[in-house]
Amino acid sequence: MSNLVAVLPGDGIGEEIVEQAVRVLAALKLDLQLEKADVGGRAYDQFGHPLPESTLNLAKKAQAVLFGAVGDWKYDTLPREFRPEQAILGLRKNLGLFANLRPAVLYPQLANASTLKPEVVSGLNLLIVRELTGDIYFGTPRGVRTAEDGAFKGEREGFDTMRYAETEVRRIAHIAFQAAQKRQKKLCSVDKANVLETSQFWRDIMIDVSKEYPDVALSHMYIDNAAMQLVRAPKELDVVVTGNLFGDILSDEAAMLTGSIGMLPSASLNASNQGLYEPSHGSAPDIAGKNIANPLATILSAAMMLRYSFNHEAAAQNIEQAVAKVLEQGLRTADIYEEGTTKVGTVEMGDAVIAALTSS
Amino acid sequence: MSNLVAVLPGDGIGEEIVEQAVRVLAALKLDLQLEKADVGGRAYDQFGHPLPESTLNLAKKAQAVLFGAVGDWKYDTLPREFRPEQAILGLRKNLGLFANLRPAVLYPQLANASTLKPEVVSGLNLLIVRELTGDIYFGTPRGVRTAEDGAFKGEREGFDTMRYAETEVRRIAHIAFQAAQKRQKKLCSVDKANVLETSQFWRDIMIDVSKEYPDVALSHMYIDNAAMQLVRAPKELDVVVTGNLFGDILSDEAAMLTGSIGMLPSASLNASNQGLYEPSHGSAPDIAGKNIANPLATILSAAMMLRYSFNHEAAAQNIEQAVAKVLEQGLRTADIYEEGTTKVGTVEMGDAVIAALTSS
Ligand SMILES: CC(C)[C@H](C(=O)O)[C@@H](O)C(=O)O
Ligand SMILES: CC(C)[C@H](C(=O)O)[C@@H](O)C(=O)O
Repeated sequence: MSNLVAVLPGDGIGEEIVEQAVRVLAALKLDLQLEKADVGGRAYDQFGHPLPESTLNLAKKAQAVLFGAVGDWKYDTLPREFRPEQAILGLRKNLGLFANLRPAVLYPQLANASTLKPEVVSGLNLLIVRELTGDIYFGTPRGVRTAEDGAFKGEREGFDTMRYAETEVRRIAHIAFQAAQKRQKKLCSVDKANVLETSQFWRDIMIDVSKEYPDVALSHMYIDNAAMQLVRAPKELDVVVTGNLFGDILSDEAAMLTGSIGMLPSASLNASNQGLYEPSHGSAPDIAGKNIANPLATILSAAMMLRYSFNHEAAAQNIEQAVAKVLEQGLRTADIYEEGTTKVGTVEMGDAVIAALTSS
Repeated sequence: MSNLVAVLPGDGIGEEIVEQAVRVLAALKLDLQLEKADVGGRAYDQFGHPLPESTLNLAKKAQAVLFGAVGDWKYDTLPREFRPEQAILGLRKNLGLFANLRPAVLYPQLANASTLKPEVVSGLNLLIVRELTGDIYFGTPRGVRTAEDGAFKGEREGFDTMRYAETEVRRIAHIAFQAAQKRQKKLCSVDKANVLETSQFWRDIMIDVSKEYPDVALSHMYIDNAAMQLVRAPKELDVVVTGNLFGDILSDEAAMLTGSIGMLPSASLNASNQGLYEPSHGSAPDIAGKNIANPLATILSAAMMLRYSFNHEAAAQNIEQAVAKVLEQGLRTADIYEEGTTKVGTVEMGDAVIAALTSS
């Protein structure tokens, strides 16, 4: 196993939040080799592509990618293949990062930040397992063509293909069942099997795989109902597994329930525990460079990296406990600030986490 | 224009809630002819199909369909084509009901019912315009096959086709822009244009149609962000237009924000103002026949029917004001009951609405 980490800060606040995560990693004095490269809009400006070959090669060689965020309004008018988001899609596909783990955790100290009533969300601790390399995100054929059949034959139409092969569903099912085994042993698979063939196929395989996990209770929910239940009673869910498109929607909705998306990390893994780690929030170009951004989601992403790609469970927990400690101390960046707490900047938050690490 | 209304109560609580709406219509003494037929699980039991030909023919002949709800757990194991939901999909497709209007309104009297903080949702009044006869719901080809290309070539795969033709996008765009003109003149189109070709095509046409509505401000939002913004600040949105699949998800999420889905009506229209009107909630078989269900969403659906299919604006408002009045009087069915209000049954709620109608 390589000890190489590709550090890709990207655009907007990416640079400054990743910097704090890198400082936290350095403070832990682990045997990691960090190498930085450009990605996103910044890479487009310099190399004419949001995911330059040199960056992709570094990511492939590395055991883990520590990713900031990409995107800026100024790239919105570029043709889609050059837009910053393509970098993230390209990394997922090229590294085969099919398993996206997105926890939605509401720290008790931040219960007021949510737009939901405290009793509905406080203590929320949900894990969304999203399939990340299949589905309509990558399915071919896709494009704009002249319709060859149907009521609008002869007209221009846009089209995409949703598709899932058996292996793709099986492998994400195993990840999800194993995650459920380590938690409350409840897994909810979200699909739209009352309408979509892909979903019925997905559901059948989930049921089949569930036979290998008799200790986990599998349930199924339609995506529209899941979007409702997240608002109605999110604490009734524990681990949710779903496809790429539905996972995109649900994981963002779940993140927003906490009211503190600046706290939420994510991991995207392949079969050899190579992973990409990034905060769940975006690049927030409006506040970039102002020492305002919350670095905790990125710092917690670094903790996930230590856990999943480097098997450093103790170091991961050390970071997570340090983050809990700074919240306990009342330190808050602007996004999670409320009266009675102490507002700090990006760097000061990094300092505080480092100070809170235990040196064992 | 025919004065025929097809009354299709369906399963679960459908019968008793539709009955109250029918009583309200009768009290208004309009020149309408009501004819009842079976649909959903009940129709399957009797005719072997959830949408029997006789029911479909009645619906086609009618100017409007007043629909209750369909579905019951006991039909869950049927092959998909016989499941109750197929009736609703079949009616939409056969009548060409491409425009689904789903208001998400939070009555000030019910602000506590929401899981969101009152300041975030009180006064919420959002209209979701969902395209209803296209998209991945009906797109072909679809099915299960052996993959002919890609990384899983030779394996079994499930697949569906998302597709939108130009006419389909244009006509729903016009409906949405016109709805926005009658409201706050803000229209937000929701898509996933950073990933999907269908969405980019959709977005380009929305922009093109917007030139005919210079008084309406058009904005665009990705579906994942929209799912978040509904939780974060739902009152910032006014009219939302989106495709069939995204609309399914968002309209249910928006409905649940109100905490009182038992209050929310919907209309599904075609180009000749033929329409299907139904509550946004489901068939709730667990409480069927107990005089517990909230009939107000169905009664409000009847009001939408008078407005859109029969051009009886005054009568529609009469119903809507009567509903507001009974809430003001403190009457509540169990789903929206809170301390200090008066709990009533399905029939009593119907009685109260009828008593509150003005006889002008
Ligand atoms: C940027 C975009 C392509 C991406 C996605 O849709 O997957 C993002 O929303 C995410 O969830 O990581
Ligand atoms: C029952 C189901 C097929 C339907 C849909 O997905 O459209 C329902 O969820 C709705 O929104 O009316």
